[in-house]
Amino acid sequence: MKKALGLEGIVATETELSHVDGQRGELIYHGYSADWLATNHSFEKVVYLLWNGHLPTQEEANQFRAAWVSNRSLSPFLHRLLEELPREMEMMDVLRTVVSAQAGGDKFWPPRWEQGLSLLAKIPAIIAYRYHFLKGNPYPKERSDLSHAAYFLYLLQGIEPNPAHVRALDAYFVLTVEHGLNASTFAARVVSSTRSDIFSCVTAAIGAMKGPLHGGAPSEVAGMLDEIHEPSQAGQWIRNRILAGEKLMGFGHRIYKTQDPRAQALRQVAKELAGKEERFQLALEVERVALDVLQELKPGRNLYTNVEYYASAVLGAVKLPRELYTPTFTASRIAGWCAHIFEQAKMDRIIRPQSEYIGPQLKNKNQSL
Amino acid sequence: MKKALGLEGIVATETELSHVDGQRGELIYHGYSADWLATNHSFEKVVYLLWNGHLPTQEEANQFRAAWVSNRSLSPFLHRLLEELPREMEMMDVLRTVVSAQAGGDKFWPPRWEQGLSLLAKIPAIIAYRYHFLKGNPYPKERSDLSHAAYFLYLLQGIEPNPAHVRALDAYFVLTVEHGLNASTFAARVVSSTRSDIFSCVTAAIGAMKGPLHGGAPSEVAGMLDEIHEPSQAGQWIRNRILAGEKLMGFGHRIYKTQDPRAQALRQVAKELAGKEERFQLALEVERVALDVLQELKPGRNLYTNVEYYASAVLGAVKLPRELYTPTFTASRIAGWCAHIFEQAKMDRIIRPQSEYIGPQLKNKNQSL
Repeated sequence: MKKALGLEGIVATETELSHVDGQRGELIYHGYSADWLATNHSFEKVVYLLWNGHLPTQEEANQFRAAWVSNRSLSPFLHRLLEELPREMEMMDVLRTVVSAQAGGDKFWPPRWEQGLSLLAKIPAIIAYRYHFLKGNPYPKERSDLSHAAYFLYLLQGIEPNPAHVRALDAYFVLTVEHGLNASTFAARVVSSTRSDIFSCVTAAIGAMKGPLHGGAPSEVAGMLDEIHEPSQAGQWIRNRILAGEKLMGFGHRIYKTQDPRAQALRQVAKELAGKEERFQLALEVERVALDVLQELKPGRNLYTNVEYYASAVLGAVKLPRELYTPTFTASRIAGWCAHIFEQAKMDRIIRPQSEYIGPQLKNKNQSL
Repeated sequence: MKKALGLEGIVATETELSHVDGQRGELIYHGYSADWLATNHSFEKVVYLLWNGHLPTQEEANQFRAAWVSNRSLSPFLHRLLEELPREMEMMDVLRTVVSAQAGGDKFWPPRWEQGLSLLAKIPAIIAYRYHFLKGNPYPKERSDLSHAAYFLYLLQGIEPNPAHVRALDAYFVLTVEHGLNASTFAARVVSSTRSDIFSCVTAAIGAMKGPLHGGAPSEVAGMLDEIHEPSQAGQWIRNRILAGEKLMGFGHRIYKTQDPRAQALRQVAKELAGKEERFQLALEVERVALDVLQELKPGRNLYTNVEYYASAVLGAVKLPRELYTPTFTASRIAGWCAHIFEQAKMDRIIRPQSEYIGPQLKNKNQSL
């Protein structure tokens, strides 16, 4: 029996989906580097790659896209649910509940790609419908001519989406769709390993994604940049934070011991979009100062900017409201969860570690049955 | 990096909650053997033990019970949700969705026992309200004088519960409340380890519990006994099943290599309740024959009757409908999940294993950015 608290350094599964090389700073999706895919292929094609094991031909891409678009509409039941869930629920609570409520009336095992596509395609509408309902805004008319990223922006902003924003959000979606056994994906696989259905698995993953140690970081990075406000304040703010023993959001990753390739790619995306904006300049300056201060106060720790740091910059540049950063992350990662759920179902092996008892010794020894 | 697919033989966490000794066939809850607790203490007191680390004084027990009872009622919103969820949803889908829908308007971290108690106390009402709504039955008048087990039977059956049934169901609840890092509890801890909220954790656990490899076995055992029907048919039926390479439901456990102590205790409970009933006699006979056939066809595998086998007998004897077996299991295990969620929150350490890439080598090498 090997003890590995937190399962650090344990390989729990094999996967064909992605290779996260923390030493070399590489991220590969089924044979293609993620940053190359982000520049050369749409989110839709990358989802096809993850679900089918190859990039689609033009015809396959067209068919997949048509199936995707046909799954976007919400039923009257889901619209009613989105109106009735208590106003104080966070958007991630809403997503978790609405995904859970889509189960039923279907063959549950093994999970099928049609079920995954139905869940994935509806995420933009779920988020936007709830968002506009709470604000009292009109809900935009449905459209079938837009990509996942474009439709997401269109539904939330109610206007023809800015093509540069669409390209940036699409790259963000590609770069965040998949990342090995992160906590949400791992939760999905644990649930799937009992032969439970895809709705149960995705619901579990959304719950994990909600955790501030997992999906919640980009909005905290935005809050940090708000607080620092001026590049000249960065050094003192960061120094105080670290000396107080607090964690610096957006820096360091459990796996990457060098630059996170997603952070580099997203930095480039943000730069193209917001290169001269003050906010982006602030992000660059805070990064430079933070890396210096970390090097000084935590030497040898090899802390680099992680994906959340520049995710925050990209999502800010495409003008998404901050409370939607984690739900937006969900709108891409759900496709990665589904890929893992399909793969886990093929393996069909329960994931079941053990615990070690450290409680009191038996007290009722002489009273036993 | 150690490879342990399915995490078999890996200790992922320490716990004070329970000790599962598969070699000796022992199950201890925080210093007391589970079978001793089932005979000597109520489910409520055992939940108190798991959540507080000691058995309650009379005063503590009274206070806990009062808090429990005061948390039982469902809000008008939950009643409406239970009526509006599509009729074809399974009860486990309903439980998962309704637990998820209770999040919001509350401080989320760290999880608090009041949140756990609110979820736990409502499970009987959620199941019974939905059950009666679908059948068109009247919903019984709420009562505050009954224990969790008694109230569960009362709400479902609409009559004063049979005291012998209450004792049996209470023992079942005690014997199934906690069992180390089973897949549902593990899913709850993975989600909690991201600092996500208790609603997300319990929702994930329900999704895992729904899986036929985890919580679904008791109703499959009942189906097997239906099919065998006559004790004289048992040998042939079981032999055919095993020779066809199929799994025999209710036998074998990943951890117990000797008798499952819960199965022994539940066999006793069922015997006291249904000792002369044909159905119980059938269960005893099928067990005897199955163990002989397994010994012959799978020598050295040490397969014994597991907890699901006699859980099925107890739940049948207290006259619960078969489609509610897994939801009934949830009505006890949710208290164990909460205990683990509280413990995980104190540890505050992310659970994050790794995967090993077995997909294709990089194809876009010379096209990289």
